[in-house]
Amino acid sequence: MKKHSVRGFKFAARGAGIKKSGRMDLGLIYSEIPARCAAVFTTNKVAAAPVVLSRPRAASGSIQAVLVNSGNANACTGEQGLLDAKRCGELTACALGIGEELVIVASTGVIGHRLPMDRFERHVPQLPAQLSADGSDQLSEAIMTTDAFSKVSLAEGDCQGKPYRILGLAKGAGMIHPDMATMLAFVMTDAKVEAGFLDAALRRAVAQSFNAITVDGDTSTNDMVLLLANGMAETAEIVAATPEAEAFQARLDEVLLDLAKMIVRDGEGATKLVRIQVEGAESDEDARLAARAIATSSLVKTAFFGQDANWGRIIAAAGYSGAQVDPALVDICFDRVPVVQAGLGTGRELEERATEVLKQPEFSVIVDLGLGQGRAHYYTSDLTYDYVKINADYRS
Amino acid sequence: MKKHSVRGFKFAARGAGIKKSGRMDLGLIYSEIPARCAAVFTTNKVAAAPVVLSRPRAASGSIQAVLVNSGNANACTGEQGLLDAKRCGELTACALGIGEELVIVASTGVIGHRLPMDRFERHVPQLPAQLSADGSDQLSEAIMTTDAFSKVSLAEGDCQGKPYRILGLAKGAGMIHPDMATMLAFVMTDAKVEAGFLDAALRRAVAQSFNAITVDGDTSTNDMVLLLANGMAETAEIVAATPEAEAFQARLDEVLLDLAKMIVRDGEGATKLVRIQVEGAESDEDARLAARAIATSSLVKTAFFGQDANWGRIIAAAGYSGAQVDPALVDICFDRVPVVQAGLGTGRELEERATEVLKQPEFSVIVDLGLGQGRAHYYTSDLTYDYVKINADYRS
Repeated sequence: MKKHSVRGFKFAARGAGIKKSGRMDLGLIYSEIPARCAAVFTTNKVAAAPVVLSRPRAASGSIQAVLVNSGNANACTGEQGLLDAKRCGELTACALGIGEELVIVASTGVIGHRLPMDRFERHVPQLPAQLSADGSDQLSEAIMTTDAFSKVSLAEGDCQGKPYRILGLAKGAGMIHPDMATMLAFVMTDAKVEAGFLDAALRRAVAQSFNAITVDGDTSTNDMVLLLANGMAETAEIVAATPEAEAFQARLDEVLLDLAKMIVRDGEGATKLVRIQVEGAESDEDARLAARAIATSSLVKTAFFGQDANWGRIIAAAGYSGAQVDPALVDICFDRVPVVQAGLGTGRELEERATEVLKQPEFSVIVDLGLGQGRAHYYTSDLTYDYVKINADYRS
Repeated sequence: MKKHSVRGFKFAARGAGIKKSGRMDLGLIYSEIPARCAAVFTTNKVAAAPVVLSRPRAASGSIQAVLVNSGNANACTGEQGLLDAKRCGELTACALGIGEELVIVASTGVIGHRLPMDRFERHVPQLPAQLSADGSDQLSEAIMTTDAFSKVSLAEGDCQGKPYRILGLAKGAGMIHPDMATMLAFVMTDAKVEAGFLDAALRRAVAQSFNAITVDGDTSTNDMVLLLANGMAETAEIVAATPEAEAFQARLDEVLLDLAKMIVRDGEGATKLVRIQVEGAESDEDARLAARAIATSSLVKTAFFGQDANWGRIIAAAGYSGAQVDPALVDICFDRVPVVQAGLGTGRELEERATEVLKQPEFSVIVDLGLGQGRAHYYTSDLTYDYVKINADYRS
């Protein structure tokens, strides 16, 4: 099998003229047979038309094709936007000769403009002839917007001796572009997975990966993570609470975390990938609150950029996060260098060693609140001149 | 009376060598008689030692002196920090010959270092001799840290023919410096104000001013707003639910909002002061959530810097704020230029007119959610190269 392929899944991509640049901007994912589907969508109340259309279809549990375009988010486009999204699905179903309800549509790009429907009318019917088992790299290019590189991850597992694969494709340069429709991820597996477990496995993997990254805390109108399982590896059905389920979960976690870290590394203007690990919180939820406040603090993120082991900003962010915090119990390490013990700085020498840690492109900040067993992590980037430049200049 | 004076209040300030620069860094506020006191402190769980010490004293309702230093926040300094804060209060009480319980101490500056107590031992006893009715301008300079300018605001009112004054002094360059201990405000009035109403009036004024500004959403360990009323204007006592109370509230609102806007204007690297007004929300709390999400979004703030009428980022921020939002009902104006009506863009021509609005140093964004009567506002700044520069380089 080719490197980035999964049994029974085919891919096509082309330049349809939706982007002004003339680059590839339209893609199709197709499973030879309907696949079991689990999905997670944006929680933004301003959901884009493709999200509104696709949410109930994904909930039905069975999907065979995904049409995705970049260059236009079809968001804030009202009733007309919904009709346009529906028409995209019809065109896809018609071209493939399958039922409309088996088609998901996804869009990413600028907000507030109608899709150029003439381009879809002309190009969607030409996609099926292009479908290929090894077209996934091209598809991952076609969904890029401000991404500096395409994002693909593959894991292999086996279920009682039968090998299977999990292939993930994502786009997004951080959670930083609501008007660029941020983050899309399509995950395909040929394992046969019981529907309820498929859904639970996706939710768990997303919580540890896409929901634990931040570039600036903005949540897009178009976010979508799809997991399709077509069973063509002919594994036994993987059901919850078995060793096979645990193994599948581990592979899925790996693929999603890999993609999520690529998104942070590609965060606009980012020069660093930082893991914020909070331990010893009163609860996991408290740990998540503290990790999120630290990971999204502009002050903390500029200090990372400045390679400044400024633990005062970290402890202050934990303090206003809403989590229970007793400053006298807090320990903080940069990788393995302790900079705070029992709420007090450990002195100049250790702070200088911590500054060396911050010079690396990737490192961890471990905050132990000393209160309980709660733990959580977040991946974040630094806040740089280039972030401001890219986002101040983007539309002009 | 001198311009920035209030009957019965005296001020002193000097350079005590707490700041390396040699600038003024130690100040004293003194009322000839004990003043009624209302106060609001940081909600950060990592509260600095002066906050821990002063909170119960302020709650007692009667205060005669405030000792304040810049250059060192006395935060994250453990038990020793609390002993140091207490000693500062003792030195002040002793120098003035008043009870220790009548003294508030406040600190602002770097986190995690002990106060240089030898400087306090030497300089605090010299402050009383310097006290002067027109020393408030010097005091407001002594409390500056990264502030580009000192912040003073005065309002005059009268109560049944008796004139009174409200003088406010503040420091802070936005809510952006947890390690610079952010924001202190001292408000003095010679009006006689009933204690319960004094407290309620301060809380209302703070909600509309200091709690409705943001530069980057970070909340400091040292924030403190004190309101002292010594009654020396010999007005009748101002009690709640009277025309006099309404007039006092209006003056107090004015002084605090004036100071709060100065803080945003002085936000690090800021070039714009933007009022985010949310109307038509299901509740005031929903309006506050939406206004806060818009005002703190890095994407919205960089668009302001780029003078880009990027309403997609604004509607998306409202969408993830937690407030109830139906995109089809949302209207958005930049000053009086409508850019979104019923969730849809109003076209190129109006967007160009909106771009002209964004070129001004001050403007409003009005978001009408079209759902109810809830309303709230926030003042915010833009996010600029200089913000990153100042915060990445600050300690190095």
